[in-house]
Amino acid sequence: MQIMGTFQEAKDIFHWIAPELEHLEKTLCEALASPAPLISEIGTHLVRSGGKRLRPALYLLAAKSCEGFDAKKAMPLAAAVELIHMASLVHDDVIDHAQTRRGAATANAKWGNQVAVLTGDYIFAQAFSMVSRKGYTEEVGERLAALVQGLCAGEILQDSALYTAAHDLEEYEQRIAMKTADFLSICCELGGMVGGASPETCAGLKAYGKAIGMAFQITDDLLDVTGDEGRIGKPAGNDIRQGVVTLPVIRALETSPDRDELRGIVTNREMTDEMVARAIEIVRASDGVAAARVRADEYLEEARRVLPETVGGEAREAFLEAAAYIGQRDF
Amino acid sequence: MQIMGTFQEAKDIFHWIAPELEHLEKTLCEALASPAPLISEIGTHLVRSGGKRLRPALYLLAAKSCEGFDAKKAMPLAAAVELIHMASLVHDDVIDHAQTRRGAATANAKWGNQVAVLTGDYIFAQAFSMVSRKGYTEEVGERLAALVQGLCAGEILQDSALYTAAHDLEEYEQRIAMKTADFLSICCELGGMVGGASPETCAGLKAYGKAIGMAFQITDDLLDVTGDEGRIGKPAGNDIRQGVVTLPVIRALETSPDRDELRGIVTNREMTDEMVARAIEIVRASDGVAAARVRADEYLEEARRVLPETVGGEAREAFLEAAAYIGQRDF
Repeated sequence: MQIMGTFQEAKDIFHWIAPELEHLEKTLCEALASPAPLISEIGTHLVRSGGKRLRPALYLLAAKSCEGFDAKKAMPLAAAVELIHMASLVHDDVIDHAQTRRGAATANAKWGNQVAVLTGDYIFAQAFSMVSRKGYTEEVGERLAALVQGLCAGEILQDSALYTAAHDLEEYEQRIAMKTADFLSICCELGGMVGGASPETCAGLKAYGKAIGMAFQITDDLLDVTGDEGRIGKPAGNDIRQGVVTLPVIRALETSPDRDELRGIVTNREMTDEMVARAIEIVRASDGVAAARVRADEYLEEARRVLPETVGGEAREAFLEAAAYIGQRDF
Repeated sequence: MQIMGTFQEAKDIFHWIAPELEHLEKTLCEALASPAPLISEIGTHLVRSGGKRLRPALYLLAAKSCEGFDAKKAMPLAAAVELIHMASLVHDDVIDHAQTRRGAATANAKWGNQVAVLTGDYIFAQAFSMVSRKGYTEEVGERLAALVQGLCAGEILQDSALYTAAHDLEEYEQRIAMKTADFLSICCELGGMVGGASPETCAGLKAYGKAIGMAFQITDDLLDVTGDEGRIGKPAGNDIRQGVVTLPVIRALETSPDRDELRGIVTNREMTDEMVARAIEIVRASDGVAAARVRADEYLEEARRVLPETVGGEAREAFLEAAAYIGQRDF
């Protein structure tokens, strides 16, 4: 996922929680110190190779917006959600045989699949370890487990739908919810819970996270069709090539005059570069791009609407800025 | 691991907890029902392809030996420890490219590596989900996380020591503790905790589990040298072939007149079947087999000695029978 352009942009949006995000880096490094020296080494590599820390940032923002915020108490869970994200990326890279991520070598490329699978497992477990005996409520562990299970089930659902043309909006949205939006949603909700917010505020934060997550993923999927490699950091048409059928493509499969040709390409497991280029051309010429933009905007509007009234001041600004940033993206 | 010959033998030893073990099967099936139909299908496959349920059996035995035992309360954690074992086997099979386990196709062979990695992650998370909001103490989640982390770190340590000849008893025992014994140890301890035993009794149960676990793994490693394929269900010399240097081999590397030849074989990543057979021959002719037997017996003696006095009646019988069974194995 190439959500939110650069680390700097993310930092600007989340400047209100800059001290907490700084503390998070230290907590992550400490969390990955292990009796097996290799795990510590890989952990340091993973923390240093960066990432936008979007999930813990949303969590910390939600938590800090609450009256009961206690930075020290909130921090282990911030690390836990980032560790879960990190572990899932390590396993994704094993599955995809990816060689680099964010310009650095992947764990599987550097240390082999065996070590990468085991390190991913270790990091998942570390996430659960972070939230033990820290005075969190029992719901916290439950939410973290649900989060991991949603991620896995979402990827398995996506995998079973690869290279097929029978998709609709509902199926697509269920898939991206499980893959991305539910994660951001739970981060926002957990922030509210740890900050001691009312159930209504927690529900509102959760709804905000879900809506922004949906918009994020639709945007990401759109960039795969409209972006160029230089800007999005991966070759355009990557999803199409991997058989992942996204919203603009689904729409084009319904409305394009060239839909039969497009169907032939996206269901072809042996597609060539030329076929990918032609598929992009068909989708760009269709109303698929516009339809996806409209849908992303609807979600951003929803995000602004459901953001609880009780979230005020700088937290509100940051939440709205995050939504606006997505809306302004030049795609 | 080919610990404890057959399911029937395990059932005989654990007959006192037969109703709980039966209930466990149902709980495991329910635990693996998922919104992704494929996960439910794989879960059912995994539960049906069996296993001796040694870890939950030790846990349930320890729990039932306590006055505060409540079968309903104890069950989710019994399922959780078996789920962790199951998930780690699913990932092991991906790593080893194993095609069958216990006579059934592995998840990776049947559904591919991607689905197998993700399903393993899902099952790990399900283990943590099982123990949320069930009224367990906070230590329980912490122990489960430590257990997974120990397993992973142990395997990574083992991986980094493959095809090397510089081993000693201490390094070997640390490795098998992390890989096997600590897991059984935590199961016994958790049983005591959930049964409401005193800290002393919990510590004794933990020590029993550790000792029996060490004996189990040494026995398993010994069978790799002394057993034949028909009896142990895998080709003899499997560890040697995979570069895993076990206690009888470590001893032979110290004392055998053919130790230089043996060193040449076990450090050779391209070893042939003939070399494996020759290595087995050298180890069998050395005092490595006897040394490993002595060490396993020491641990079994320790297991009997540290079993808390407060554990009486049928529970005590079952614990002692489990230890005796290992001791009587015809290796």
